[in-house]
Amino acid sequence: MIYLDNSATTKPDKAVLDSFHQVATQYFGNPSSIHGLGMDSERLLRKAREKASALLEVDSPEIIFTSGGTEGNNIALKGIALAHQNRGKHIITTSVEHPSVMEACEGLERLGFEVTYLPVDQEGRVSVDDIKFAITYETILVSVMHVNNEIGTIQPISEIGQLLSNYPKIFYHVDNVQGFAKVPLNIREANIDLCTISGHKIHGLKGTGLLYVKTGVKLFSLAHGGGQEANLRSGTENVPGIVGMVKAMRLAKERQAEINNLAELKQYVMDELSKMRHIELNTPKNGSAPHIVHFSAPGLKPEVVIHALEERNIFISTKSACSSKSADESQVLVSCGRSYEIASSGLRVSMSYETTKAEIDVFLKELTKVLDKLSKVMR
Amino acid sequence: MIYLDNSATTKPDKAVLDSFHQVATQYFGNPSSIHGLGMDSERLLRKAREKASALLEVDSPEIIFTSGGTEGNNIALKGIALAHQNRGKHIITTSVEHPSVMEACEGLERLGFEVTYLPVDQEGRVSVDDIKFAITYETILVSVMHVNNEIGTIQPISEIGQLLSNYPKIFYHVDNVQGFAKVPLNIREANIDLCTISGHKIHGLKGTGLLYVKTGVKLFSLAHGGGQEANLRSGTENVPGIVGMVKAMRLAKERQAEINNLAELKQYVMDELSKMRHIELNTPKNGSAPHIVHFSAPGLKPEVVIHALEERNIFISTKSACSSKSADESQVLVSCGRSYEIASSGLRVSMSYETTKAEIDVFLKELTKVLDKLSKVMR
Repeated sequence: MIYLDNSATTKPDKAVLDSFHQVATQYFGNPSSIHGLGMDSERLLRKAREKASALLEVDSPEIIFTSGGTEGNNIALKGIALAHQNRGKHIITTSVEHPSVMEACEGLERLGFEVTYLPVDQEGRVSVDDIKFAITYETILVSVMHVNNEIGTIQPISEIGQLLSNYPKIFYHVDNVQGFAKVPLNIREANIDLCTISGHKIHGLKGTGLLYVKTGVKLFSLAHGGGQEANLRSGTENVPGIVGMVKAMRLAKERQAEINNLAELKQYVMDELSKMRHIELNTPKNGSAPHIVHFSAPGLKPEVVIHALEERNIFISTKSACSSKSADESQVLVSCGRSYEIASSGLRVSMSYETTKAEIDVFLKELTKVLDKLSKVMR
Repeated sequence: MIYLDNSATTKPDKAVLDSFHQVATQYFGNPSSIHGLGMDSERLLRKAREKASALLEVDSPEIIFTSGGTEGNNIALKGIALAHQNRGKHIITTSVEHPSVMEACEGLERLGFEVTYLPVDQEGRVSVDDIKFAITYETILVSVMHVNNEIGTIQPISEIGQLLSNYPKIFYHVDNVQGFAKVPLNIREANIDLCTISGHKIHGLKGTGLLYVKTGVKLFSLAHGGGQEANLRSGTENVPGIVGMVKAMRLAKERQAEINNLAELKQYVMDELSKMRHIELNTPKNGSAPHIVHFSAPGLKPEVVIHALEERNIFISTKSACSSKSADESQVLVSCGRSYEIASSGLRVSMSYETTKAEIDVFLKELTKVLDKLSKVMR
């Protein structure tokens, strides 16, 4: 099997699964229990939080463990909006965010908030100046993703952070689900207040994630209760999942040393695809993540290409998993100014550190065959 | 080890862990992906939902998988409140709910909602008449737990449901985290609109849970995004956890046949405790769940008793895990009209279907020794 859909989800690392199993069997106590079994779990949880904060170069109490990226993004957006609405009800984001940000914003609009969805350029990049001009006295939050989940564009996160340092009352949220351990980002230096990471995108487990919340940032909790996770996300902590999440973060960070190999592999895919007839590249040549290559095969239905490749035991995707069952065209590509034909024929290859050149060569060879065959039939 | 803190959390069943591991390794695809790996996961998810709905005797689309009881309660309360606030902003609940309901209500009060916290009788039971008299034209939601997590009191869920059938515009939420598979409850017959269940309280995994949402009930989603879980709870589904959750539900339901044994064991504990000096029972003799026995040892700090028992490898708790690190006295016991002395010296024994009489005998013997010893020192 050649799995090239790592931006949808990754195969859990064996070491992560082993950690999960060990904790679930040997440390099953509730961290809130005051007896020794609870204290053992609580100790593991504390260590996991310390390790996670060290990996992100932030403070331990700033780590809020969640059930995943979508929850993290929702806590950030709704948490800020509901807690700070007395100060203003205006939010700024971009038109290429993940559905968990887009839909959360639309949800907030139904609660009376005003949201500015900024346009992006042809490469899917938002302009820092556009953000500056969108800011009003009512603005309480700016939310911009680090790496686009469909086409891999890297947003100017640090520059936006620098701009927002002039507006101390505006909170800055960054969805780093696709960027973590793939594209360097220093949370502190980029002046970020809230930052989302997901476990299952980095060979961790589904149902795990993390939200960085800067010390002092006040949120309306979406999960009130026993006061776990600094009162921001109550509920008995999923200690086995959390330990697995942090292990996945550590392994991903270690493999970040191989980032140049991954970037080279991506460049190779881009180069080879650009030589193929019937293909248009959507991933920008510069300023894009090292693991995502998005392209369109105009005139072909992407599902047909995907299924033809699947018969050859190769797995790729069309746009993002979270929007793959909805409308035909990719909203991200539409926002980048692509035609309907391009926007509705998108295909995404997303690699992991485990992807090899040999796999990519097989993929390219089989894709060529599939496109030739389908083009004859369809055109 | 004699583990008698099963209302805080349970040891995951080996079969649940095996299912989790199998799914996490062999079916790691994202259920939203359109290729075969995604479809395999999606099929597993659908089967899990069907099995869960069959176990609860409801329809499959009414099952919303969550990350646990706290999330389920929060989705229910805030989801109803934020979606239906135009119709009214009044919520009715009781003064003995789990912190995830109490604190969610207090959170909603900060958003402008009005909440009536009804008193309970000495046994911790709310009066159906009190609910009736509390209803106003503004009431949109009644939330009552099935089984109290501290003292085990069973609330008149069906009677309240019958009352509320006269008020078709008021939604009815039941927190069934402690009651599931311990105290029979037919969701449909009890006229329930929303019902919360947690995985880790029934030998499932932490980070898993389920919310029943009756067909047609509209909620404001706390997790907007890819539209998973009927648009009510977006985010890549934790398929391994969900499969494990449903396995735990099935195993728990199967063991429900042993409910009489459990009830007899509980009666035995109650009888023996009532013979002991220095002990006051808080769990009602009648109308309480078969697995919880709560008592006070006035004059003794419960932590001291817990730690003394722990030295003998026996694990019990004081009040609930979710509130065990906060204030001294139990709010549940205060609501039942107990004195400060009783309310601040509570101890909870919570059994599972795995608890044996031999274990209980050891517990009773060691508790006697501990109480005698401590009483000599303390009194």
